Amino acid sequence: MTYKQLYDQILRKGSFLCVGLDTDMEKIPACIKQAVSDDKLPEEEAMFLFNKAIIDATVQYAVAYKINSAFYEAEGWKGIRQMEKTVSYLKENYPDVFVIADAKRGDIGNTAKQYAKAFFEKMDCDAVTLSPYMGGDAIMPFLKYEGKWAIILALTSNVTAEDFETLETRPHSLEIDDESQNHVPLYERVLRQAERWGSKENIMFVVGATRPDQLYRIRLLSPDSFFLVPGVGAQGGTVEEVATAGMNSHCGLLVNSSRGILYADSSVNFASAASEKARELVAQMRLYLNQTKR
Amino acid sequence: MTYKQLYDQILRKGSFLCVGLDTDMEKIPACIKQAVSDDKLPEEEAMFLFNKAIIDATVQYAVAYKINSAFYEAEGWKGIRQMEKTVSYLKENYPDVFVIADAKRGDIGNTAKQYAKAFFEKMDCDAVTLSPYMGGDAIMPFLKYEGKWAIILALTSNVTAEDFETLETRPHSLEIDDESQNHVPLYERVLRQAERWGSKENIMFVVGATRPDQLYRIRLLSPDSFFLVPGVGAQGGTVEEVATAGMNSHCGLLVNSSRGILYADSSVNFASAASEKARELVAQMRLYLNQTKR
Repeated sequence: MTYKQLYDQILRKGSFLCVGLDTDMEKIPACIKQAVSDDKLPEEEAMFLFNKAIIDATVQYAVAYKINSAFYEAEGWKGIRQMEKTVSYLKENYPDVFVIADAKRGDIGNTAKQYAKAFFEKMDCDAVTLSPYMGGDAIMPFLKYEGKWAIILALTSNVTAEDFETLETRPHSLEIDDESQNHVPLYERVLRQAERWGSKENIMFVVGATRPDQLYRIRLLSPDSFFLVPGVGAQGGTVEEVATAGMNSHCGLLVNSSRGILYADSSVNFASAASEKARELVAQMRLYLNQTKR
Repeated sequence: MTYKQLYDQILRKGSFLCVGLDTDMEKIPACIKQAVSDDKLPEEEAMFLFNKAIIDATVQYAVAYKINSAFYEAEGWKGIRQMEKTVSYLKENYPDVFVIADAKRGDIGNTAKQYAKAFFEKMDCDAVTLSPYMGGDAIMPFLKYEGKWAIILALTSNVTAEDFETLETRPHSLEIDDESQNHVPLYERVLRQAERWGSKENIMFVVGATRPDQLYRIRLLSPDSFFLVPGVGAQGGTVEEVATAGMNSHCGLLVNSSRGILYADSSVNFASAASEKARELVAQMRLYLNQTKR
């Protein structure tokens, strides 16, 4: 999917909502668990059928779905098969939707190539989240696919982001004459390097919603790129804070909500409750999208 | 597996060799590919049967196997099923061997918990490689499992390790009075933080073989921990350099070779060629192990 196609979808739906499919077998509604234990539903279909119900109920509001690989891996190969089925279901039924594999991979070139094959060929995801720790090698193989995206961790929403991401850095000793290079947080160094690897057309960044002041600063540093923003809802961020601090002239945001939508209701009404939660978030988003368009 | 059990195995086998199962469907021997295309061998067994042959041929020399998750993910759920079968085969037939999932995961706490479940419960791996970018949240859930290990990326063997891993860092402004804190490479900061998370009994570090001078320095900083050292062979490092720079009184090294062993021969003799390559590496290793024991 191109930058333009994504932005067009955002305008069409009046939304920059990404629904996170962190599908947890321990948290899915009792009715699905019961159907599995009654043998009315095969266990290896439960995650997929839950996802399908959530997708159908929220797709009028969501421009993107983020599939959190860990939850599927935790169920072994049967989980991966359901992840694959979820991606196929999205692509076949809602081809406009942007599909993100939230996998946070990051390895040397020949291994990164295999991960790219996994998410872009074996599954037809539009994007995959990547960790920059190992440098450009870990990112470049993903950028060779036309219309596919690398979403690179910059500043994340978790407390221990401060262990390393916000440390001040400076380049190797040969280059230290330039004092302006000496107090650059690691996440900012990631943003700068990424400009050498790709562009706003194939790179996005993960920027947590729990740090609106820093989100504002990061928007100044990277005015055109899309940011994938987790941390709204369960982790404490709000749409208002994120939109105010991070929106650009092409929206530039995909705001993710996972638990707040998926587990809004644990009864048989889980899908309509998810739909209602998505609708509420999008109602807030529209206020800010309309301001930008003016 | 405990630190002591691992060291005992090293002494018993006179080896600190880790065989990397980077099983690439494009590189496996022609005889296996032929058997698949002749329908004599189901496609979804090819990686597992190749691994089984490699394991049986090398296990007298190897103390550890490192399964590179990317290569299995690239084959979809059928690949993951073969990864699971490989781990089970190792655990059932060679319970002394240390099994590493080379996955380089790293995510927030509730997601990291799912990854730990995937590699330590769904599969019975002894260790998983992890990226430290997101900080302690990404590591801690793995340390809750007794006898299991987190192997944290410190300084890797790839060229672009210098993009971020070797940047000089300093802590947040509140703490900068201490000048000794001001020129610490990021990978060293990772080593220091990791001491707060765990110990030599449940944390190892990835340190590339292509940087023996830095390996020596890292050994001084972390005298007791095990290092998983990739980069010997195809990437250019040698056993001599690594042992000289990195060995401690309890060996402290797992030196990995993947391509040099797996693809030593592409004929029907691939397994005996792999065995011979492993034997050669271990012959070199024994020289250094004997020196340490004296």
